[in-house]
Amino acid sequence: MRQKIILDCDPGHDDAIALLLAARHPALELLAVTTVAGNQSVEKTSTNALKVCTLARILDIPVARGMQRPLLHPPHFAADIHGESGLDGPDVPPPAFPLAAQHAVDLLIDLFLHSDGDIVLVPTGPLTNIAAAIRREPAIVPKIQAISLMGGAISVGNVTASAEFNIWADPEAAAIVFACGRPITMIPLEVTHQALATEEIIGRLRAMQRPVPTFVADLLHYFADSYRQVFGFPAPPLHDPCAVAAVIEPDIILAKEMHVEIETQGAWTVGRTVCDIYAKTGLAANARVGYALQVDRFWDLLLDTIQGYE
Amino acid sequence: MRQKIILDCDPGHDDAIALLLAARHPALELLAVTTVAGNQSVEKTSTNALKVCTLARILDIPVARGMQRPLLHPPHFAADIHGESGLDGPDVPPPAFPLAAQHAVDLLIDLFLHSDGDIVLVPTGPLTNIAAAIRREPAIVPKIQAISLMGGAISVGNVTASAEFNIWADPEAAAIVFACGRPITMIPLEVTHQALATEEIIGRLRAMQRPVPTFVADLLHYFADSYRQVFGFPAPPLHDPCAVAAVIEPDIILAKEMHVEIETQGAWTVGRTVCDIYAKTGLAANARVGYALQVDRFWDLLLDTIQGYE
Amino acid sequence: MRQKIILDCDPGHDDAIALLLAARHPALELLAVTTVAGNQSVEKTSTNALKVCTLARILDIPVARGMQRPLLHPPHFAADIHGESGLDGPDVPPPAFPLAAQHAVDLLIDLFLHSDGDIVLVPTGPLTNIAAAIRREPAIVPKIQAISLMGGAISVGNVTASAEFNIWADPEAAAIVFACGRPITMIPLEVTHQALATEEIIGRLRAMQRPVPTFVADLLHYFADSYRQVFGFPAPPLHDPCAVAAVIEPDIILAKEMHVEIETQGAWTVGRTVCDIYAKTGLAANARVGYALQVDRFWDLLLDTIQGYE
Amino acid sequence: MRQKIILDCDPGHDDAIALLLAARHPALELLAVTTVAGNQSVEKTSTNALKVCTLARILDIPVARGMQRPLLHPPHFAADIHGESGLDGPDVPPPAFPLAAQHAVDLLIDLFLHSDGDIVLVPTGPLTNIAAAIRREPAIVPKIQAISLMGGAISVGNVTASAEFNIWADPEAAAIVFACGRPITMIPLEVTHQALATEEIIGRLRAMQRPVPTFVADLLHYFADSYRQVFGFPAPPLHDPCAVAAVIEPDIILAKEMHVEIETQGAWTVGRTVCDIYAKTGLAANARVGYALQVDRFWDLLLDTIQGYE
Repeated sequence: MRQKIILDCDPGHDDAIALLLAARHPALELLAVTTVAGNQSVEKTSTNALKVCTLARILDIPVARGMQRPLLHPPHFAADIHGESGLDGPDVPPPAFPLAAQHAVDLLIDLFLHSDGDIVLVPTGPLTNIAAAIRREPAIVPKIQAISLMGGAISVGNVTASAEFNIWADPEAAAIVFACGRPITMIPLEVTHQALATEEIIGRLRAMQRPVPTFVADLLHYFADSYRQVFGFPAPPLHDPCAVAAVIEPDIILAKEMHVEIETQGAWTVGRTVCDIYAKTGLAANARVGYALQVDRFWDLLLDTIQGYE
Repeated sequence: MRQKIILDCDPGHDDAIALLLAARHPALELLAVTTVAGNQSVEKTSTNALKVCTLARILDIPVARGMQRPLLHPPHFAADIHGESGLDGPDVPPPAFPLAAQHAVDLLIDLFLHSDGDIVLVPTGPLTNIAAAIRREPAIVPKIQAISLMGGAISVGNVTASAEFNIWADPEAAAIVFACGRPITMIPLEVTHQALATEEIIGRLRAMQRPVPTFVADLLHYFADSYRQVFGFPAPPLHDPCAVAAVIEPDIILAKEMHVEIETQGAWTVGRTVCDIYAKTGLAANARVGYALQVDRFWDLLLDTIQGYE
Repeated sequence: MRQKIILDCDPGHDDAIALLLAARHPALELLAVTTVAGNQSVEKTSTNALKVCTLARILDIPVARGMQRPLLHPPHFAADIHGESGLDGPDVPPPAFPLAAQHAVDLLIDLFLHSDGDIVLVPTGPLTNIAAAIRREPAIVPKIQAISLMGGAISVGNVTASAEFNIWADPEAAAIVFACGRPITMIPLEVTHQALATEEIIGRLRAMQRPVPTFVADLLHYFADSYRQVFGFPAPPLHDPCAVAAVIEPDIILAKEMHVEIETQGAWTVGRTVCDIYAKTGLAANARVGYALQVDRFWDLLLDTIQGYE
Repeated sequence: MRQKIILDCDPGHDDAIALLLAARHPALELLAVTTVAGNQSVEKTSTNALKVCTLARILDIPVARGMQRPLLHPPHFAADIHGESGLDGPDVPPPAFPLAAQHAVDLLIDLFLHSDGDIVLVPTGPLTNIAAAIRREPAIVPKIQAISLMGGAISVGNVTASAEFNIWADPEAAAIVFACGRPITMIPLEVTHQALATEEIIGRLRAMQRPVPTFVADLLHYFADSYRQVFGFPAPPLHDPCAVAAVIEPDIILAKEMHVEIETQGAWTVGRTVCDIYAKTGLAANARVGYALQVDRFWDLLLDTIQGYE
C-alpha cells in the first residue's frame, strides 16, 4: 500500500523536483499540493506548481494556493536563489489547468479531518500553511501521521548566520509546528548540503534525453549558478527532495531524536532551529533530526523516478 | 624577543594546563595571571591559580583576583565538569605565595596603559574582567595588541544547544569584547574538540615521570571522566591551551576572518557566538575564527613544554 | 442610516453588556457577533454569546465561533475576573438557537469582502480572529471602514504591570491589527477605568424592574466583587461597552492620534501597547487613543439603551 | 545629626540644583559628588559639577569623575534638553579646583567600605557608577544605608514612550541596582512632573538678588525653553532635586512599596521601570515608588536652601 502524502511547497527549483519525486514514486500516493509564499510570492509559487504539473502531466492532483505571507513577519522572498519567477532558468509552458477552488489551509484541514490518520505531511517551504491550519482547526493535529520537513540547520544557517530560509521566513509558524506533538522528521542543511547536484548527476539526467529529465537538468543548471555566486558552492544542494526521500526510505538519512526549539526572540538568531543534541534542556525529543544522507542511494532513488517521466 | 601575554583565566583543569604552557614556553613572556569567576567562584579559581604556580614553581608572576560575578547575569559555575574545587582530581599542595594586592581589573588597566601596545591578552574564561577593564578605562583598548580567546562555537554549544560556557557565562561581557575593535582570534569548540587528550597522550605525560607532567596527567584523567559522563566523549577536549598555542604558532589553527556577534537577547540562544561565515550581515570581520587544529603539532608543542617542568 | 458593525467578543460580563448595547442602539446595525477565546475558552464565550442573545431576544444576528487559542502563545483565561463559565453570577437560561455554520474568521472575511467598506469592526476580546482573517485574506483590509477596539493601556496594565488582558492574551495578533493601516480607535484602561459601575448605576438598572436590566445589574454585581477582590477597586470598570459607545458618539471619549506599537519581545512587557504620546518614534499615527470618558453621557447612553429591552 | 549622602550625578540643569540643595541643606552632610556620563559626556558633567561647586563656594567636597559610558549600550546624551555643554544657559566661570584623584567607582567603594552603613546614595543620572561599584566590590552592598534615585516612570517615559532617560541610558546598570536588595526610593516622572518651575518660582529666585539664586533662575529659564520646545510643557519639571528632598523629608513624596523590574529585552520598551502596582508578579517589593509630591513644601524647602547661598 502506498504512503499517502501532501506536499506543501513554494516552488522553487528544488521544490519542483520534490514535486516530481512525490508524484511519481511508486511508494507514495500524492493527495494534494499546497503552495505558500516563500521562495517567491504565493501567486508565483502556485503558478510554478501548476506549470510543473502541466509539464509532467500530473493532472489529477489538486493544487491549492495558501498563505500570502508569514504569520507575523513581513514577507521576504529568495529571488537571489530562485530568480524573479521563483523558477528561473528553463522555459516552461503555461499551466493547462487551474488551481483548486479551496484555499490550501481549508484543503489541509479537510483532508486531515476526513482521513484515517494515515497521511504524512511534507512541507518544503515556510510552515505558514501548516501553522495556520493547526491554529484554525486543532482537531487535525492527532490526524497527522507524521511530518517530514525540509528546514533548519544544526550548525550554520544559509539566510543568516543562524537560520535556514524556510524556518527564518516564518519562525512563529515553525514554533507552532515543532510544538504540535506529532512525529517530526527534520531535514536540515547538514543533510541537504550532501545532496550536491554535480555535473555527473546533471549529465545522467541529460543522457535520458526526455523532456522532464531535461527540465530537471535545466533547473539544476540554473541552481548551480545561484549557489556558485551566493555561497561559492561548487555544486548546488538539492534540499527539498530529501524530505520526500525520507518518507520513501526513512533510513536514507542518518538521524537522531532530540528536542528542537525555534528561536523567535533573538537579536541575531531569529529563526534558528535550536537542536539540543547533548540533551541539555531536559525536554523530551520532539523531532528526529537528520545529520547525514546516504548520498548514492538518494541520487539513484531520485533519478530512477525522474527517468519514469516522459 | 618573546611575545608578552597576560593570561586571564578561571582554573579549571584546562586553564591550569594553559597556564603551564604560557609560563614556560620560550616564545612567551607571561606578565600576569588574572582570575575570574567561571568554572568556579573567583575565590576558588584564584586559589587554584596560586596552587598551580606553586606546584610548578612559577613564583615571579603576579596572580590577581578579578570579578566575582558576570556583569549582568547571575553566576553559574561548572562543577559538573571541574568539581567542587574547580580543580578536582589531583592532590595539590596549598599556595606558597599570596595574591597580588591589586584587583585584576586594575592590574590589566595598569599593564596595558603603561605598555607599548605589545601585549596579547589570552582569556580562557568568561570575559568579565576584560569587559570591566575596557569600560572602566577605554584608553586601554588601543594598547591591546591582540586578543586570543578560548570561547564560543560555530555550530553547537556545550552548556546549551546554542552556547559555549565561557561566552554564555557572561554574554554582555563577550559582546563588549567582540565590539572593541582590536584583532581577536577566537578559538571555538570546533578547534578544541580536536585537541582530545587520548590515553596515548596521557601515557606520554606519565612516562615523563616528573611531578608537573604527572599533575597534568592527573588533571586529564579527571577531565576524561567528566567528559565521558556529561557528553559521552571518549576522550576529553583540552580547550584553553589552544588559545595559548595560537599565540605561539598562529598557523597551528586553521581560521577564517569573519564577523561575530554575541546573542544576548534570545529565548534559547543567549551566549551564542553568531559566526557570519557566508558574510550575510555585510558587517566587517571582527575576528579570526578557528575551525580546525593541527593536532599533532599542538600536542608536540604542549608536551615539549610540559616536559620542561620538573 | 445606521452604522453597520460587527462585534468580535469573548463574553465575559462587560462583553455581554457591550453586545446588548450594540444590538439595540438605534444608531447601529449589528451584522454579526463573532467569538474568540479570551475571558474563557471559545466554547464558553460562544455559549455565553448565544445565551445573552437568547435572553435579550436578539435572534436574527449570526453568532459565529472563532479561534480557539492565540496565534502563538498558549491560552490563558481570566477565570479570576469572570468565573469558570466566563459569565458567572446571574442565572441565564440555555441558548435557544445555534451557532452559525461558518467559522468566525470565514464570516468576517465574507462580510467584509462583500461589503461596501461601510462596516466598523468592534473587537472587545483578544484580536486573534481579526489577525487570522487579515492574514488569511489580506483583501479584506481596505474594506474595513474602521476598528474601535477595547484594549491596551497608556500607563499601567491590568493583567501584568505592563499589559492589558486583551492585548497581552494575543500580542502577535494585536501587532498585526495595529499595523493594518485602517483607522483604529483604541479604548484603553484609562478610558474604561472611568466607566465605574457604582451602586447608583446598579440601582438605576434595578429600578427598571425588567429582565434584561436586572440581568445587567446582576452581571455588574458579580463584576464588582471580582474587581474588589483582585484590584481593590470600589466599583468595577465597564470596559467593553466603551468601544461600542465610541462608534455611536465618537466624542464620548477624549482621544489623541498617536503611533502605537505592540511589544512582543520583552522579558516583562509583552503585550504592552507602547503609546508614543510625545511622538518620540517619528512614526506616523496609527491609532486614535482614548484617554478620558464623558462619564455621564456614557451611562445615559448605555442605560437608555438597556431600558429599551424587556 | 546630619544624614550623610553621596550625590552621583550628570549635571545637567536639574542635577546642578540638586547639588546646591545637597551641599547646603542643614539636614544633610554631603560626603562626595561623583559624576557619570548621561546628560552629557562625563568630561562635561564633571566640569559642570566643578563649576557649580566653584560658583557656590562648595570647595571642601571631593568631585570624582566616573564611568565614560553605559555598561553595555552605546552612550546617548541629552543635548536637546541640556545643550552642548550639558549646562547651557547661564555664564559660569571656570572651575577653581581640580577633580579628585580617585575614579568615582573607587571613591564610592572606599567611602562605603569604610562607613558605618550610614550613607544614603542619591543617584540623579544613569546608574552606571553604582552598578560598576556593586559588581566590582559586592561587599559594599550591605553598607549602603539606602538609595534615593531620580529615574523611571510608572506610566509614560520621556526619552521613549516607555522609558525615562536615566534608566533608558543604562538599563543593565539599573537592573543591577534594583536587584541589589537595599532600600530604594524611586522618584519617577510622576513625582518630578509636579515640581514645575513656574514663572512665580523663577520670580522668587530672582527677587533674592544674589549670585547663586540668580544662577538657579538662569538655569530654570533655559530649562523652560527646552521643555517648551521638546515636550510642549508650559513650565519645566525639576527632576533631580526631588531625590534629594526625599532624603531630607521622606514624606514630601507620596509613595507605595512595590516590585520594580527593569526591562532590558523589549523591542520597544528597553529601559522601562515595570512597576507592579497591583502586585501581579508575586515578587517582594524592592522599591518605594513615589507617585506624588507635596509641591508647596518642596519649593519652600528648595528655595529656603538656595537663599542660604550668597
